[in-house]
Amino acid sequence: MSASPLTDLSRLCIHTITTKPWNLEEAAKHYSAAGVKGITVWRDALERRDIKAAGNMLRDHGLAITSLCRGGFFPSTKKEKRQIAIDDNRRAIEEAHALGTDMLVLVCGADPEQSLEDSRAQIREGIETVLAEAEQAGVRLAIEPLHPMYADTRSAINTLGQANDMAAQINSPWVGVAVDVYHLWWDPALEQEIKRCGAQGHLFAFHVCDWNVPTRDFLNDRGLMGRGCIPVRKIRGWVEEAGFIGFNEVEIFSTHFWGGDQAEYLEQIIEAYREHT
Amino acid sequence: MSASPLTDLSRLCIHTITTKPWNLEEAAKHYSAAGVKGITVWRDALERRDIKAAGNMLRDHGLAITSLCRGGFFPSTKKEKRQIAIDDNRRAIEEAHALGTDMLVLVCGADPEQSLEDSRAQIREGIETVLAEAEQAGVRLAIEPLHPMYADTRSAINTLGQANDMAAQINSPWVGVAVDVYHLWWDPALEQEIKRCGAQGHLFAFHVCDWNVPTRDFLNDRGLMGRGCIPVRKIRGWVEEAGFIGFNEVEIFSTHFWGGDQAEYLEQIIEAYREHT
Repeated sequence: MSASPLTDLSRLCIHTITTKPWNLEEAAKHYSAAGVKGITVWRDALERRDIKAAGNMLRDHGLAITSLCRGGFFPSTKKEKRQIAIDDNRRAIEEAHALGTDMLVLVCGADPEQSLEDSRAQIREGIETVLAEAEQAGVRLAIEPLHPMYADTRSAINTLGQANDMAAQINSPWVGVAVDVYHLWWDPALEQEIKRCGAQGHLFAFHVCDWNVPTRDFLNDRGLMGRGCIPVRKIRGWVEEAGFIGFNEVEIFSTHFWGGDQAEYLEQIIEAYREHT
Repeated sequence: MSASPLTDLSRLCIHTITTKPWNLEEAAKHYSAAGVKGITVWRDALERRDIKAAGNMLRDHGLAITSLCRGGFFPSTKKEKRQIAIDDNRRAIEEAHALGTDMLVLVCGADPEQSLEDSRAQIREGIETVLAEAEQAGVRLAIEPLHPMYADTRSAINTLGQANDMAAQINSPWVGVAVDVYHLWWDPALEQEIKRCGAQGHLFAFHVCDWNVPTRDFLNDRGLMGRGCIPVRKIRGWVEEAGFIGFNEVEIFSTHFWGGDQAEYLEQIIEAYREHT
């Protein structure tokens, strides 16, 4: 059963990277004027900024700050590199706290020089190493399983089942999962794993976009909802049946859309949100 | 536990598409001279040929014909197109029989205009429709699960678990599975599903190559064994523990390698087979 159409924008969140050509002030102004209620901030949008002031600016525009993207990339065959990743995740937790959001999304990483099992063990070790800081900062960590086409270098966690397993093993209220339709739509176990994720209390975030047919680039050819082959509304139905009441976050990497007028694109996003999300 | 190194070429098979610039005679001559013992023929290599004569020519070169690639592509929202696919699969079975091979590999297909569940139902229906012809021709059908990045248009069967399920449902000695490391290496259930595939008597074929890091093209940037991140030998160990004693088939689509000298490439394939398969 699909979810009912979204009749208002009260649960619409947009990732800053979706409209990458806009700086943070432009994004805030346009999102807010269009009635968007949430924003997820990518760290590149915070470079050389007073992060606390940036958070205040966003809230002054009436935007809830859903999460900060992204921490993670824990695995490496080299101990020094794993330590660099730990340090960077600590900084990301501090940034999330300063920004005033309670969630940091983790793209967990993978090192092709070692097995996926070893990478996963290092991911778990990395998350557990920074967990006390996350709790102290009031920042939840959301493990985002990535599509298997990213298993070489971006994430050794490639199904929702694996993310659920890891969140269950770590067993902390501060560690859960971000469900992104782009990464998970093909998985025959998706409905049951979304149910399990919700039942475990780990369903922290829900990201939407679409899979273009054909897809021309491994990274930057995501589609607007309704223009590809992902049953976005059906998956939203599963997520809501699992108890999720948070934002529907539009996260689209697209060379095509980044090259166009961002204000027109924002109108298209909102239409795609109402019609196909 | 990884498998022992392959000390001879008695189980080495190469797909004609791996050395696409060579025609069938050139492939036969070079493979045979190098000590390769098996060949899998792609249908494009048989166009406008007397297929029986082609089979005899290959056998005269001492090559076993492992399989014909490929049938499948059953799903469509349109009934006429599904019928065209059925007819084409019947022709492929006849071609396999004429060639003198006992196996046809199926890339099962998917239609992005419908759900993956509907595509899978049509795949099953398609296979069951041609099953009697396959049995009569003595041609086994090998379902090849494809990487989830091909779930939009190439296959709605994206894990070995799904292929095993379908083979079990169809429950015929003429329907089994082709395991390709490229499509399946990332799957956390791979070892257990290979075991199950063998126990069901459905482990028909084993294809090898590697996943380049980075991969630059969705289709034609596969790597030579040992040059990417797939634990090929470890997976061969699982396949052999599951009882497989057939050919190790080298199937590499690569614009890079197709652009070079094919005789030198064949030497590299054999080295990669000995050192990394």
